[in-house]
Amino acid sequence: MKGFSLSRAACWAGSPLGFLAPGSPSPLLSHRAKAAGRMAENGLREKILTLESMNPCVKRVEYAVRGPIVVRALELEKELQQGIKKPFTEVIRANIGDAHAMGQKPISFLRQVVALCLCPELLSSPIFPDDAKKKAQRILQACNGNSLGAYSASTGIDLIRQDVARYIERRDGGIGSDPANVFLSTGASDAIVVNYYLDEEHNWALDVGELRRALNHARGYCQPKVLCIINPGNPTGQVQSRQCIEDVIRFAMEEGLFLMADEVYQDNVYAEGSQFHSFKKVLMEMGPPYSQQQELASFHSASKGFMGECGFRGGYVEVVNMDPDVKQQLAKLVSVRLCPPVPGQALLDVVVSPPQPGDPSYQQFQGEKQAVLKALAEKAQLTERIFNQAPGIRCNPVQGAMYSFPRISLPARALERAQELGQAPDMFFCMRLLEETGICVVPGSGFGQKEGTYHFRMTILPPLDKLLTLLEKLTQFHAKFTQEFS
Amino acid sequence: MKGFSLSRAACWAGSPLGFLAPGSPSPLLSHRAKAAGRMAENGLREKILTLESMNPCVKRVEYAVRGPIVVRALELEKELQQGIKKPFTEVIRANIGDAHAMGQKPISFLRQVVALCLCPELLSSPIFPDDAKKKAQRILQACNGNSLGAYSASTGIDLIRQDVARYIERRDGGIGSDPANVFLSTGASDAIVVNYYLDEEHNWALDVGELRRALNHARGYCQPKVLCIINPGNPTGQVQSRQCIEDVIRFAMEEGLFLMADEVYQDNVYAEGSQFHSFKKVLMEMGPPYSQQQELASFHSASKGFMGECGFRGGYVEVVNMDPDVKQQLAKLVSVRLCPPVPGQALLDVVVSPPQPGDPSYQQFQGEKQAVLKALAEKAQLTERIFNQAPGIRCNPVQGAMYSFPRISLPARALERAQELGQAPDMFFCMRLLEETGICVVPGSGFGQKEGTYHFRMTILPPLDKLLTLLEKLTQFHAKFTQEFS
Repeated sequence: MKGFSLSRAACWAGSPLGFLAPGSPSPLLSHRAKAAGRMAENGLREKILTLESMNPCVKRVEYAVRGPIVVRALELEKELQQGIKKPFTEVIRANIGDAHAMGQKPISFLRQVVALCLCPELLSSPIFPDDAKKKAQRILQACNGNSLGAYSASTGIDLIRQDVARYIERRDGGIGSDPANVFLSTGASDAIVVNYYLDEEHNWALDVGELRRALNHARGYCQPKVLCIINPGNPTGQVQSRQCIEDVIRFAMEEGLFLMADEVYQDNVYAEGSQFHSFKKVLMEMGPPYSQQQELASFHSASKGFMGECGFRGGYVEVVNMDPDVKQQLAKLVSVRLCPPVPGQALLDVVVSPPQPGDPSYQQFQGEKQAVLKALAEKAQLTERIFNQAPGIRCNPVQGAMYSFPRISLPARALERAQELGQAPDMFFCMRLLEETGICVVPGSGFGQKEGTYHFRMTILPPLDKLLTLLEKLTQFHAKFTQEFS
Repeated sequence: MKGFSLSRAACWAGSPLGFLAPGSPSPLLSHRAKAAGRMAENGLREKILTLESMNPCVKRVEYAVRGPIVVRALELEKELQQGIKKPFTEVIRANIGDAHAMGQKPISFLRQVVALCLCPELLSSPIFPDDAKKKAQRILQACNGNSLGAYSASTGIDLIRQDVARYIERRDGGIGSDPANVFLSTGASDAIVVNYYLDEEHNWALDVGELRRALNHARGYCQPKVLCIINPGNPTGQVQSRQCIEDVIRFAMEEGLFLMADEVYQDNVYAEGSQFHSFKKVLMEMGPPYSQQQELASFHSASKGFMGECGFRGGYVEVVNMDPDVKQQLAKLVSVRLCPPVPGQALLDVVVSPPQPGDPSYQQFQGEKQAVLKALAEKAQLTERIFNQAPGIRCNPVQGAMYSFPRISLPARALERAQELGQAPDMFFCMRLLEETGICVVPGSGFGQKEGTYHFRMTILPPLDKLLTLLEKLTQFHAKFTQEFS
């Protein structure tokens, strides 16, 4: 009986990135001999897992949203707690789309249902409304052992996959969705290799000519297979037109690219005249050959929208026109992870099947939801207005999602100073901003931007009064910074 | 601005396995030309993502616990629901360590605390005890925005990492644990490449001679770096002696292997004279050079033990003597996943810092915990006794964890029949068992077993009366099966 196993490189909990792939060049082979030599020299053995013996892919991974700026922000918070004097009294984290961290209150109904699922003894208490109880009972009946503590199927609880499929059908005006194509997930991520630039002059529009340029460039050194789109856009906040989506689908079809649509901001559309169109709906309405052949995966989650429940890690992906063999491999692969977190699945179920008119919780649910979306729309406009009043800052309208991506001018001496420090110029700006004001935003260089332009991504999530202060401090800092380096 | 990206192969939500590693041989390069040719022939384009264009590593992944037996069990459940007649009225899932699915009730205090965190308005209701409220308030204060819906730090909530470190210190008799070495996680997985056999004749003992044989064999075709141990053992249910753990540590040190200890069953020890020893404690007590140099990662979770909360996906890993650069890479890597599910972190916190004597919930908590562990101990003994009364079945004592791994004799004609079907003999047995009795267990071939021996893994989790029925039906079926093929 196999009681343990030996493996070629470390794989941390759920993180197969740590593997050296079987076909990849192995820096390990000569490693042990070298290590043994060093051990003999100083009596101390070298570590087994070292940077040199690690899969080089791991070292190349970068994630701007939780990068050095955020590490420093955490340090500053600790220093403030220790009583160290700073030119500010708190760190304002505008770096990540984390609504609750910024004070947004949870939607009551969502939490009531999950709490009832956790403690079914609450079902007999008058503390929660009847429709929350019914919803909780329905979810518990679909759980193994009627408990959120049991594993679900790897692809998620069947009933919830059905509810998601019905939600997609309603969203897309009746176009069919098969629950068998819906996989519940722990979140939504994507694969980033080749970069493309949006057109800032046309409000971050997507242009197929530029798509083609990037693809042809990429084909010089790899074989691109997947095109990832985020709509509404992160970090740029644009909402794509129906025409633009059609163009992208045609391009993907012509070029033989699998489409991945990150649509987690589908409820976050603020600008008048802007409307969310799902890739699935547009694809289906384009008819054959597109609707029958173009492969697509569309992602959604409970982390954004009006609910902002990032901590639950609840999401789903719907696959369209996927090769059945590949779908089977996908199902096998997710089974290794056992199942997505069940409290997150339960919460997602409430998101996709909310209270209906006439239900006891309908009014309150709608009231809370609309209040969140209205406040976000106001903050989107405020952000655009204040930034565009400041010399040297230019900000496109925040049509959707929860970010602004303003362009900043930086004086030549600041660019020189950044180069001396080995930093991207907007990283230099953002780091200084953080140290002097406590405001934490992400440099545009972390997302990719046209050569010679500089940006930062800032969420519009802080409460209105705090956002106003933030915008004022930020524009003042930019003016001071410009003067200092001019 | 980069609005999307092109990637070389599909990566499904959080599943980087789907990538083709940069250095690996690419079956894609000739793929598009071929596809274009076929498209011209029949007017239909070939799929972009196909089995041929997929990373071959993905195809090689196998996971017995959710393999074909479980797929068939789910189908049978659906057929029963549709009223199709079967020789049984329900499927009994003894394939997976999922306590709640088998009717185990959650520990009240764990659920109360998480429900209070979800709905802080319950804090002012008399419905839950005061210590649960205090615990919930303490957790919420440590959450961003005081909400379970906010992202936590990627490595987990600081306060909970501290609580875990203190738990480890208590468990290990005061040996220090640094919260900076504790990473909260979504579960615990391991990397399986090379197999080794435990000694069934000596109650699944680990033997260093056999370890060395397997290692030398593996070195013929790869460079093993990691040794994974599960203690208490899954699927074999053995609890390793302190001496055995010392031997393994010495072996790892001599051979330059990183140790991964899956210790999720550390609370599940039943046999008299058996005791859980953590690898960390033994390593530290062995003193230098082991305690200063041997690298170790130890995993634990809220899924097993007395709590059985699999659905929450709450766990942690403690790393010991890890290269600081590698630890930094690990921290970076987990940040891409944003954070482990926060409800699972909260639940884990209660597991590692339970009610203390004098707290209002102490008696009830201890009562519920001990009742679960006592029932498991009884079921472990019952399972061993009944199996060993049956001719042709032999079962080692279930010292710990939640599985028995009995060895079964299979008649020669059954082996022939299995070969005709292209199935492993114990897969053939288990599939027939499922079809005729509704009992779902996992064939030993899915875990690795000595050539010419046959086993299955069965959990001891069903309620006592159901377990008794299951054991009787299973031994009867084995007798009938033996007769049929003799």
